[in-house]
Amino acid sequence: MARINENYRKLPAGYLFPEIGRRVAAFAKANPSAKIIRLGIGDVTLPLAPAVVEALRDAATESGTASGFHGYAPDQGYDFLIEAILEHDYRARGIALDADEIFVSDGSKQDSGNIQEIFGTECRIAVTDPVYPVYVDTNVMAGRTGGVDEKGRFAGITYLAGDEENGFVPPPPGVALDLVYLCSPNNPTGAVMTRTQLEAWVAWANARDAVLIFDAAYDAFVQDASLPRSIYEIEGAKRCAIEMRSYSKRAGFTGLRCAYTVVPKGVEGTTASGERVPLRALWARRQSTKFNGVPYVVQRAAAAVHTPEGRKQTGEQVAYYMENARSLRRGLSAAGFRCFGGENAPYLWMRTPGGLSSWACFDELLSEANVVCTPGSGFGSAGEGYVRLSAFNSRENVEAAIARIRKAFEGRA
Amino acid sequence: MARINENYRKLPAGYLFPEIGRRVAAFAKANPSAKIIRLGIGDVTLPLAPAVVEALRDAATESGTASGFHGYAPDQGYDFLIEAILEHDYRARGIALDADEIFVSDGSKQDSGNIQEIFGTECRIAVTDPVYPVYVDTNVMAGRTGGVDEKGRFAGITYLAGDEENGFVPPPPGVALDLVYLCSPNNPTGAVMTRTQLEAWVAWANARDAVLIFDAAYDAFVQDASLPRSIYEIEGAKRCAIEMRSYSKRAGFTGLRCAYTVVPKGVEGTTASGERVPLRALWARRQSTKFNGVPYVVQRAAAAVHTPEGRKQTGEQVAYYMENARSLRRGLSAAGFRCFGGENAPYLWMRTPGGLSSWACFDELLSEANVVCTPGSGFGSAGEGYVRLSAFNSRENVEAAIARIRKAFEGRA
Repeated sequence: MARINENYRKLPAGYLFPEIGRRVAAFAKANPSAKIIRLGIGDVTLPLAPAVVEALRDAATESGTASGFHGYAPDQGYDFLIEAILEHDYRARGIALDADEIFVSDGSKQDSGNIQEIFGTECRIAVTDPVYPVYVDTNVMAGRTGGVDEKGRFAGITYLAGDEENGFVPPPPGVALDLVYLCSPNNPTGAVMTRTQLEAWVAWANARDAVLIFDAAYDAFVQDASLPRSIYEIEGAKRCAIEMRSYSKRAGFTGLRCAYTVVPKGVEGTTASGERVPLRALWARRQSTKFNGVPYVVQRAAAAVHTPEGRKQTGEQVAYYMENARSLRRGLSAAGFRCFGGENAPYLWMRTPGGLSSWACFDELLSEANVVCTPGSGFGSAGEGYVRLSAFNSRENVEAAIARIRKAFEGRA
Repeated sequence: MARINENYRKLPAGYLFPEIGRRVAAFAKANPSAKIIRLGIGDVTLPLAPAVVEALRDAATESGTASGFHGYAPDQGYDFLIEAILEHDYRARGIALDADEIFVSDGSKQDSGNIQEIFGTECRIAVTDPVYPVYVDTNVMAGRTGGVDEKGRFAGITYLAGDEENGFVPPPPGVALDLVYLCSPNNPTGAVMTRTQLEAWVAWANARDAVLIFDAAYDAFVQDASLPRSIYEIEGAKRCAIEMRSYSKRAGFTGLRCAYTVVPKGVEGTTASGERVPLRALWARRQSTKFNGVPYVVQRAAAAVHTPEGRKQTGEQVAYYMENARSLRRGLSAAGFRCFGGENAPYLWMRTPGGLSSWACFDELLSEANVVCTPGSGFGSAGEGYVRLSAFNSRENVEAAIARIRKAFEGRA
């Protein structure tokens, strides 16, 4: 008899987004004439930039020629892409990294889900709350937790609550921890950690020999030049932090799939006997055994994001979404809704009106305004009483959504 | 202190192919004028077929338009690709499967490495030997094994030796097992399981409630119409078998990345309390949590493989490689080398001349014939005394390699 991994049974029945999909599909079926505006799932809507399309097409053509065909890609990614990353994402901000510290992958979801594999099951994990569900679910699947309580919290994970008082950026805690997932700009709250806040986390991690998993998938949306976009802008971070970045949101790659993870050589874990081991070697082994590279054509497309035209075109896309975010925040705040985020991130984090639960607000927004949000409680118990609105949509839809939400909740915001 | 996953330390220092790469690079550096022919790593060499290139280019262009842009792909793959798979890979051979039993992915390496995650750590695993290293290494990483012995075998894994006596197809064993990895056409031996042999495995698995992981990544290379290409051609397999297929070798997708895994609803595992659970639901959960889909442009390219032009063009590629395989087998057998495979698979499995060890033969082939092979011992201890030669190269290189190998070992084969 093949025994199953029973840790899977600890997870709630559905991943958050499929559940939203089911409710929206049911509503759409019952109300076929409703013009639903989707500000729920964080998927981009603008087409791929011309520079990206051209690079994709050229690489496709090249792949059809004897001299231009590319088989298996190098384990960690092509030099042309890694060099572009080092130059534009790091050296341009004064950060020196080595090429072999960059691991090109097919997504930050995969990387942030897989990274736990290189750690022992006894590692004490912490997440901020609310949080991207993948960090938690993958640790549950790996058996690092006990069961789930009625609030949706798993035994064995430390939850660091973000709230209005701490600006949704929980400070380092007093308890002993080994591995902490941080996300800035934050999904779902849109909060961005300041330099001082990040310095506190890096100092805390180095003092305790803990590792920080820093998910910077939304770094391109930071507007305030004083805010850090990489954790390596902080002194000492190359001794304690693994950073993840993605082309998904910055360049519309959600359907094209390219991201990367940085594992500096100075970040170490320990064996039971106390021997120190560079995590880079473990991640390299993990990737060379379980991954087979990002398509050549996609790596060419990603490299095009770093060209002058690519930077200009994808910068305009980011600016478009950020104008949406500002409209959402301005329009809903003016109507009395209590809103956070949306200034350096493509997400608006809104307190539900009248003390509604997150799912009740979701249902009412869907039925009354025909607008899809994401219930904050789907990101953890500290997200209860909030909803997330995404700026990834057309200007017209965002403006229409603002008007509809204001109307649906008139006098109640 | 972040404790590492110490199971990684049980693995030998290098994955097989990087070690080959190091030796070849060192030889090339010391002998810059040597014209090295690479028949080692199983990477394709022909450019992408015109129908595939055209589909890729069209999808790229489409992705640059507002109406044709595609963001996150459906979890299990686009309907257009799943339908093409069901029609051409299954219904055409009399096999009925449901669309939700197909999981499109970015590679059989990933799928065959990840599949163990949905099983309990107590599962008793078996592999044939020699074997594709990923099956073993990923179970080692997951903690299902003890340490490794001097022959490279891990405690806790059952090795079923393939040898000349059983035609490199070990029969089902008498011992109790829960999960068995089978690969046909086989990498590395090129052996293909007959209908009778597969029937014995399926009957054995169903009688014991075991699960078979059937890796059919090389099915397109089967020439003999009487040999099964899918395990689902065998009655009862939909109750015990998970099948993996790939576009990598059949259509030159090693650098484009597309594959799929079939998990029929009837294949079940059990909990500690004896409850039966469909593995399909667990794999769906695994993929929706840790994977984010294959690029739209790549799925379009894969679908083009199933069009009349795509089938004709990729069929010609397969025929080209199989002509290479036949030449290898004919040319080397005629010179006295003892050869297997190469008739329904793109790999030739050759006994080393004069009782050389696999690595000694590798080194001599490299230094004397400037031909790169893969040492059989890299696939397991039962592979010692053999080398694998790949048919993925140009006709000229294959013919030259045959002549050089014959010359280098003249009088010793």
